[in-house]
Amino acid sequence: MAGLELISQHRCFGGWQRYFRHDSAEIGLPMRFSVFVPPQAEKARVPVLFYLAGLTCTEETFMIKGGAQRLAAELGLMLVAPDTSPRGAGIAGEDDNWDFGTGAGFYLDATQAPWRANYRMYSYVTEELHGLVTGELPGDAGRLGIFGHSMGGHGALVLALRNPAKFRSVSAFAPVAAPSQCPWGHKAFGNYLGPDREAWAAYDATELMRKARAPFPGGILVDQGMADGFLAEQLHPEAFEAACAQARQPLDLRRHEGYDHGYYFISTFMEDHLRFHAQRLLA
Amino acid sequence: MAGLELISQHRCFGGWQRYFRHDSAEIGLPMRFSVFVPPQAEKARVPVLFYLAGLTCTEETFMIKGGAQRLAAELGLMLVAPDTSPRGAGIAGEDDNWDFGTGAGFYLDATQAPWRANYRMYSYVTEELHGLVTGELPGDAGRLGIFGHSMGGHGALVLALRNPAKFRSVSAFAPVAAPSQCPWGHKAFGNYLGPDREAWAAYDATELMRKARAPFPGGILVDQGMADGFLAEQLHPEAFEAACAQARQPLDLRRHEGYDHGYYFISTFMEDHLRFHAQRLLA
Repeated sequence: MAGLELISQHRCFGGWQRYFRHDSAEIGLPMRFSVFVPPQAEKARVPVLFYLAGLTCTEETFMIKGGAQRLAAELGLMLVAPDTSPRGAGIAGEDDNWDFGTGAGFYLDATQAPWRANYRMYSYVTEELHGLVTGELPGDAGRLGIFGHSMGGHGALVLALRNPAKFRSVSAFAPVAAPSQCPWGHKAFGNYLGPDREAWAAYDATELMRKARAPFPGGILVDQGMADGFLAEQLHPEAFEAACAQARQPLDLRRHEGYDHGYYFISTFMEDHLRFHAQRLLA
Repeated sequence: MAGLELISQHRCFGGWQRYFRHDSAEIGLPMRFSVFVPPQAEKARVPVLFYLAGLTCTEETFMIKGGAQRLAAELGLMLVAPDTSPRGAGIAGEDDNWDFGTGAGFYLDATQAPWRANYRMYSYVTEELHGLVTGELPGDAGRLGIFGHSMGGHGALVLALRNPAKFRSVSAFAPVAAPSQCPWGHKAFGNYLGPDREAWAAYDATELMRKARAPFPGGILVDQGMADGFLAEQLHPEAFEAACAQARQPLDLRRHEGYDHGYYFISTFMEDHLRFHAQRLLA
């Protein structure tokens, strides 16, 4: 496959777990991503579900910890997980923080120096990775969904709300649902996008929902653990919920007592999310 | 709970994923282990399935990568995973090799200096951890099963074959099935047990099966990937298979084309193993 280097592959639930590397035009650096190809892809193009991971994660996290392949193989969904930022841009300080820089690309296109040359995860996922998955790989461009966790839940909501013609279904686990209102968002948006808060709104799911002209088709599923240590300060699902109510956006925001922010929470509700997307992508 | 320190706990599939630390009398050092407690344990003691992990793993590996909690919660099985060796014994060179020393305890009681003081994983699992899980924790001592992967598959077979009154069911993923005949076993047994090969036989599933007076009740399930890079040199399932045939031991050795040695293979067949044990422990 032109430009795609297969790093490794593993048989998994009758399909293939694959890891790729490629020279990314959007990022200007080599990027890695992972794909679970279900057995159904041997015969035809299959629906694709993108997963965007959270702070400090890589393209491997979801595929190891999410427990999604079993049902994806049954439903015939391809799973695609990009890395969470550029790697090796060589920007001073980019490795110094766990919540900014490497591992923390926030799925946006930076506009500020020195980040703007490489930190273009928004265009990387929506354009370049999208093109690879539906061109070089057997993904069906007409049947794409997206979900994610925490920073990646923010990313999934933003990418879907801004590209409803591209993504037909969206859900999130514990998303950073109003990044303009939380410390993670202030730090990331302030540095990547500059001080102008108008520019932040284009990457804030709650702000996008407030300005939405029409509801996102098929509704939105969000799961949130109530023992999540980041809930009060960073996540603000209630702000997104209010914006959805105002915009008449169908939202199923499920609050789960006792569950925290990690993959034991995510894996518990993974099946519900896969079935949610499958209903919308396989219909 | 006396002596058990709860390091962390996470809600997971309606039960609890817990990590414990305790001062181990057998090991003479602090040890960690992980437990998945299914929801059914709120009302009564539940069957326990021990999982022994492979080289370089910890008590966390199986709980993160195995994908077992979903079905364990449904079936009402407690899952218990110890670490794979003592940690911090302070023996010169114990951290130098990935296949010997820390992370590579081989589930035996070492007889050779300097290992014999701490490297006592056989007694640690069969006696001390067994006692904790069925005493301090709500495990049912009359309904215990054991399984494992690679070095831990070896451990599961050996512990079950030597303790059929304690373990009622056993299975393995890609076990080191004849360690006396492979480089990993030569290195580990030679150093932990000394040069006398008679001493090795007590920790070799194939040798134990050759001398078995009666078949292990309920049969044995083994899954092996045929694209496993360790198969030819290290695993020797055919030797175990021959010993089982000779001993009239029912064995379901399943060979899976294309699957390798990792957790993408293990997770694919995890459901079959949990159902195998549940049939024998819940009957």
